[in-house]
Amino acid sequence: MAKLYFRYGTVNSGKSTSLLQVAHNYEERGMSVLVLKPGIDTKGKQTVVSRIGSSRTVDVLIGEGDELTPQKISADTSCILIDEVQFLSADQINQLLEIALLKNVPIICYGLRTDFKTKPFPGAARLLEIAHGLEELKTICRCGKKAIFNGRKLGGDFTSTGEQVAIDGENKVEYEALCGKCYIKLVGPLTGK
Amino acid sequence: MAKLYFRYGTVNSGKSTSLLQVAHNYEERGMSVLVLKPGIDTKGKQTVVSRIGSSRTVDVLIGEGDELTPQKISADTSCILIDEVQFLSADQINQLLEIALLKNVPIICYGLRTDFKTKPFPGAARLLEIAHGLEELKTICRCGKKAIFNGRKLGGDFTSTGEQVAIDGENKVEYEALCGKCYIKLVGPLTGK
Amino acid sequence: MAKLYFRYGTVNSGKSTSLLQVAHNYEERGMSVLVLKPGIDTKGKQTVVSRIGSSRTVDVLIGEGDELTPQKISADTSCILIDEVQFLSADQINQLLEIALLKNVPIICYGLRTDFKTKPFPGAARLLEIAHGLEELKTICRCGKKAIFNGRKLGGDFTSTGEQVAIDGENKVEYEALCGKCYIKLVGPLTGK
Amino acid sequence: MAKLYFRYGTVNSGKSTSLLQVAHNYEERGMSVLVLKPGIDTKGKQTVVSRIGSSRTVDVLIGEGDELTPQKISADTSCILIDEVQFLSADQINQLLEIALLKNVPIICYGLRTDFKTKPFPGAARLLEIAHGLEELKTICRCGKKAIFNGRKLGGDFTSTGEQVAIDGENKVEYEALCGKCYIKLVGPLTGK
Repeated sequence: MAKLYFRYGTVNSGKSTSLLQVAHNYEERGMSVLVLKPGIDTKGKQTVVSRIGSSRTVDVLIGEGDELTPQKISADTSCILIDEVQFLSADQINQLLEIALLKNVPIICYGLRTDFKTKPFPGAARLLEIAHGLEELKTICRCGKKAIFNGRKLGGDFTSTGEQVAIDGENKVEYEALCGKCYIKLVGPLTGK
Repeated sequence: MAKLYFRYGTVNSGKSTSLLQVAHNYEERGMSVLVLKPGIDTKGKQTVVSRIGSSRTVDVLIGEGDELTPQKISADTSCILIDEVQFLSADQINQLLEIALLKNVPIICYGLRTDFKTKPFPGAARLLEIAHGLEELKTICRCGKKAIFNGRKLGGDFTSTGEQVAIDGENKVEYEALCGKCYIKLVGPLTGK
Repeated sequence: MAKLYFRYGTVNSGKSTSLLQVAHNYEERGMSVLVLKPGIDTKGKQTVVSRIGSSRTVDVLIGEGDELTPQKISADTSCILIDEVQFLSADQINQLLEIALLKNVPIICYGLRTDFKTKPFPGAARLLEIAHGLEELKTICRCGKKAIFNGRKLGGDFTSTGEQVAIDGENKVEYEALCGKCYIKLVGPLTGK
Repeated sequence: MAKLYFRYGTVNSGKSTSLLQVAHNYEERGMSVLVLKPGIDTKGKQTVVSRIGSSRTVDVLIGEGDELTPQKISADTSCILIDEVQFLSADQINQLLEIALLKNVPIICYGLRTDFKTKPFPGAARLLEIAHGLEELKTICRCGKKAIFNGRKLGGDFTSTGEQVAIDGENKVEYEALCGKCYIKLVGPLTGK
């Protein structure tokens, strides 16, 4: 019985690099992988881009209301890999679990846990609840501690207001991985939100 | 900098046993632990009870609206342990993270991820989003596979309707840990809920 | 395909408690487990004893030269659990891996990584090399940090000389879990040994 | 107190890629890393090379008898990364633990657990015994299961004889990651070795 995995991490924790490495591992053995990504994320258009210089075309962009059914998965698929999975809906994550179980194909999802206000993304929240395996990709805060949050900067300053989705590098928006203490200090308290 | 941990597992995965073991480990070294539990859970009243025969009095029951502040934690506390953490509110989990960070005391929380409908409990959902460490306590389904869901039985039959909270052993309610495939077969699909 | 697991930890990290909990989890579902232990370890004779008050009879004591073959495992065994696994030989661990693979029964081994001189035990060394899964059971040092070593005390004082095997509680021998820094301070450096 | 980590995996499990990603994570934050490698490994000379197309110069090659002392580590080093760590000696690993503890700098080591005969490499064996954290980088066998062993091919055929060290791609030597069952089938049994 195949499993559904969530490899979560903050921004810049190497999620896309890990996805590209897994795709490479399967393909150099002659096995077929299916690489998916939500259409909402326009960074790099229809590609998965790693900050250490590698990239790869996404096989299918998943639209907002798309239903993910076992019938859509080719019989020769050995592994399904999903980048920026946090943008999927809870229902789409349910569908992924059913595909893993019924089609017997492992699914490895990469994404953020929370947004710049520490609020959950829909796809991430559902994966944290039902995935068979939760694996952290770690990176460091500016202070050297393990980062757990994603701070948003607007024109260089941290902000705690705005829409949930704003793409990195567009409209002066940037993200920075922060530990709990630095987040509270630089962005604000978690409580009372 | 101390951390906030979530050790999650299905029913009967040994969560209370693990909590009692950690408490024992600290106390046999002469260190002080604080054992907390939400007041909502009436099983075993003000005790943590392990199915393998051990038990221990809870130091403080946490009420629904209680605020958990650093000031309430005695300076000699080496570790805070929380049983049935899923019943806490999201805000109380935020407060726990702030206590771990500001008071520099590790906090280990034990609880379920989801209810019998696979919907999240409030405290669990927030811990999955912000805890420093997510660690699974594993157990098996009736089929021998790893269990990830909690089925509810009413008078011996699985049910998918009812209130989120119903205590095990009261009013003919029982719980059974199930893998994804057995849950879908015995309780119903995840999708379309 | 079943797997071979090594759940390692220092003295007093809850290894026996975890074993007893897993046995309970299988048995309350009506499945059969086989509990094994090396004959060399005489603590508690033919029982697994947890410090939090639970215990259980060992099904078979493993002798020094015993060969562990698939034929010896009853067909209805759902899980094999081994306490104090560090005392097995490398060959016996190889045999365990073959049983897990060929008999398709999961094997969960509990034991120490290293002795009081930080030198490996034979069974532990081999498990660290070939087990499918390495999982740590954590406990704390007297300083509050995570313990990774086992200090031996003789009549209350730490010692760095003596035989590898000396049973806790006999002949004034006691063990204490220590972090790296405290081990170096209280027992001596790792280098130059 | 900083820690010593061992990220182990079979050949082609993405160890170098992970190392390069961690180096990148530190450096894009303006922190300094030290990348080390045993001199014995001549693949790629003084570079760390990832199969997905990235690479980086090694700062220092470690010679066979070299002593690794805290004095040799620059005060501004935020993290030490070591590739092909299995080739270091047990003593050098002891020295690394002391550096992590006394210099308070995290050390992340990447390497294989065992050779093509499933026998341990010296540096790997010692890390498995004393590292604070053991983390697996996973890849798959030709059969789709998780690989745990490294098979050696000579001119295309698996072999179970030869020296421990033979560099991939030289003298018709190649390596292939294998699961336990495929290793036994293609190379031979573990027992009786």
